[in-house]
Amino acid sequence: MRGTVLYGTRDIRFEEVPAPAVLHPTDAVIRIAAACVCGSDLWPYRGISPVGKPTPMGHEYCGVVEEVGRAVRSVKPGQFVIGSFFASDNTCPNCQAGYQTSCQHRELVGGAQAGRLRVPLADGTLVATPEMPPADLIPSLLAISDVMGTGWFAADAANVGPGKNVVVVGDGAVGLLGVLSAKQMGAGRIIAMSRHETRQKLAREFGATDIVTERGDEGIARVKELTGGVGADCVLECVGTQESMMQAIHATRPGGSVGYVGVPHGVALNGQDLFYAHVHLHGGPAPVRRYLPQLIDLVWQRKINPGKVFDLTLPLERVAEGYAAMDTRRAIKALLRPEAA
Amino acid sequence: MRGTVLYGTRDIRFEEVPAPAVLHPTDAVIRIAAACVCGSDLWPYRGISPVGKPTPMGHEYCGVVEEVGRAVRSVKPGQFVIGSFFASDNTCPNCQAGYQTSCQHRELVGGAQAGRLRVPLADGTLVATPEMPPADLIPSLLAISDVMGTGWFAADAANVGPGKNVVVVGDGAVGLLGVLSAKQMGAGRIIAMSRHETRQKLAREFGATDIVTERGDEGIARVKELTGGVGADCVLECVGTQESMMQAIHATRPGGSVGYVGVPHGVALNGQDLFYAHVHLHGGPAPVRRYLPQLIDLVWQRKINPGKVFDLTLPLERVAEGYAAMDTRRAIKALLRPEAA
Repeated sequence: MRGTVLYGTRDIRFEEVPAPAVLHPTDAVIRIAAACVCGSDLWPYRGISPVGKPTPMGHEYCGVVEEVGRAVRSVKPGQFVIGSFFASDNTCPNCQAGYQTSCQHRELVGGAQAGRLRVPLADGTLVATPEMPPADLIPSLLAISDVMGTGWFAADAANVGPGKNVVVVGDGAVGLLGVLSAKQMGAGRIIAMSRHETRQKLAREFGATDIVTERGDEGIARVKELTGGVGADCVLECVGTQESMMQAIHATRPGGSVGYVGVPHGVALNGQDLFYAHVHLHGGPAPVRRYLPQLIDLVWQRKINPGKVFDLTLPLERVAEGYAAMDTRRAIKALLRPEAA
Repeated sequence: MRGTVLYGTRDIRFEEVPAPAVLHPTDAVIRIAAACVCGSDLWPYRGISPVGKPTPMGHEYCGVVEEVGRAVRSVKPGQFVIGSFFASDNTCPNCQAGYQTSCQHRELVGGAQAGRLRVPLADGTLVATPEMPPADLIPSLLAISDVMGTGWFAADAANVGPGKNVVVVGDGAVGLLGVLSAKQMGAGRIIAMSRHETRQKLAREFGATDIVTERGDEGIARVKELTGGVGADCVLECVGTQESMMQAIHATRPGGSVGYVGVPHGVALNGQDLFYAHVHLHGGPAPVRRYLPQLIDLVWQRKINPGKVFDLTLPLERVAEGYAAMDTRRAIKALLRPEAA
């Protein structure tokens, strides 16, 4: 089998790798219907989070179950399933509280940019669709495996609700799907902070009512102008840099909420600054598993179309082009299709 | 008139100061019935937050209105009133959202450790009791001016509710009243982190079910033992140091909440650490004004007795002894009684 391996900065290879197999009774092996490149894959790709050794890439996936371990009860071969980047047992106290990405037995899923994938803790991790999906739904089903689930968590963590004023910091796929999530949750004004025309266009399509192109203090000032001088009720932080976190916190009104899902890189929050900002702060690795049934249902009923973030589709073997296109921001997000088995 | 002035590190003087007067039409002048020394007064007293010049001290107060400006409508001379450390108009969008300490026109109140006090924005700031209170209620009414309101906000910000597991970090007056607040809000287990016997005793009296004497990683491990291995639902941070913030964050279960009210001194939160902790974080200067009517009612009905935190009562002119006793932790909190006018 061939799969995607990162060797070092901007050195991504599609090469022969060991075929996955059921290693534990709770494992499943799935045939990948579609995978993709994540914004977070760009951190090691760019060498900002260096990889120590050749690393199988990919953690967003959907596909058909081929084999399950003897302890697996809730999914079976032939079913179309979606999972998240952290495998979780879905039974421990943290899972039961809805924080499956803090599962006491969590395992990172890796190597999904390949033809097949081993998924640990299959019963807790995978959710099956009602039946085999039509081809045109595959991009949206793939999106909820990570980016859509993450955008949804950002909106949920920021306490988005009917009529609220929302700001989204970050116009990557997660930010854009944060806009879609806020719209779906009934937000009033949705302000997308973006400088890129194609992303602005998609943000508007997903429900953004306003675009703010300014950043930093100017961006904050512009948000305040748009929100009666006080700041937004809800701000979604979908980047993970010091600048984006500060922009999010200070664009929020006192008593408002920041939902942050951008994996922080070099972020340090000054305690006193945060204290006087008076905001609610919640975030972390999105517990996508919590939302999978609801999001599968919304996609199945064609109420949301998060697959629109894929503006580049490539055969899996051309995965390196997908990384390069996202690295240079020529593409928002690249979908990868393995050859039919 | 004589009042309390801080000249420098541990140099507190009770001396002749200008008598307060109505300076603006929205001001009131009140005759102080009781004032006290705040834990936050100890930061400048100890020289950790140096004062640049002689500074009138005291921001916790209750007393009788003597005079009001011509624009004041909601309180009148002769009424017994309670206010908070930030004067607020109670009409701006931030006040209306319940964040009066982020009022767009807020003013710090200072100089309450004196016989009389000017309170700006009297209509928005002061709340009158139903009638002149009996003498034995004065300590509890004074407590809600700051420490009780702050402990209550910590519990509220930590989403305390019926049956929840609660941890309180800090056994000063605010922490102890955080215990009382959690009990009043119906918490299940209430774990007070304290090493001081007299404070442990009061914590138990206020509703603590468990005492943890360990700190840092050991304290966190002990809390996890007491909470099924996952951490507490709600943690009240009532100190404001790096150690106490870390203790609070890591004693909280994923998805749980930290309410922090200790004014941060030298606190920096690592973005990635916070991200993976998966907690809700909310806090800041307590919007005591939001809670005044409810807390006055609870005291008036003798359902809560926050005045118990005052374990030292002094005539106002001996205020320096109050600071010294709190500085050396001989007293939890010192109540100061001006001579009758």
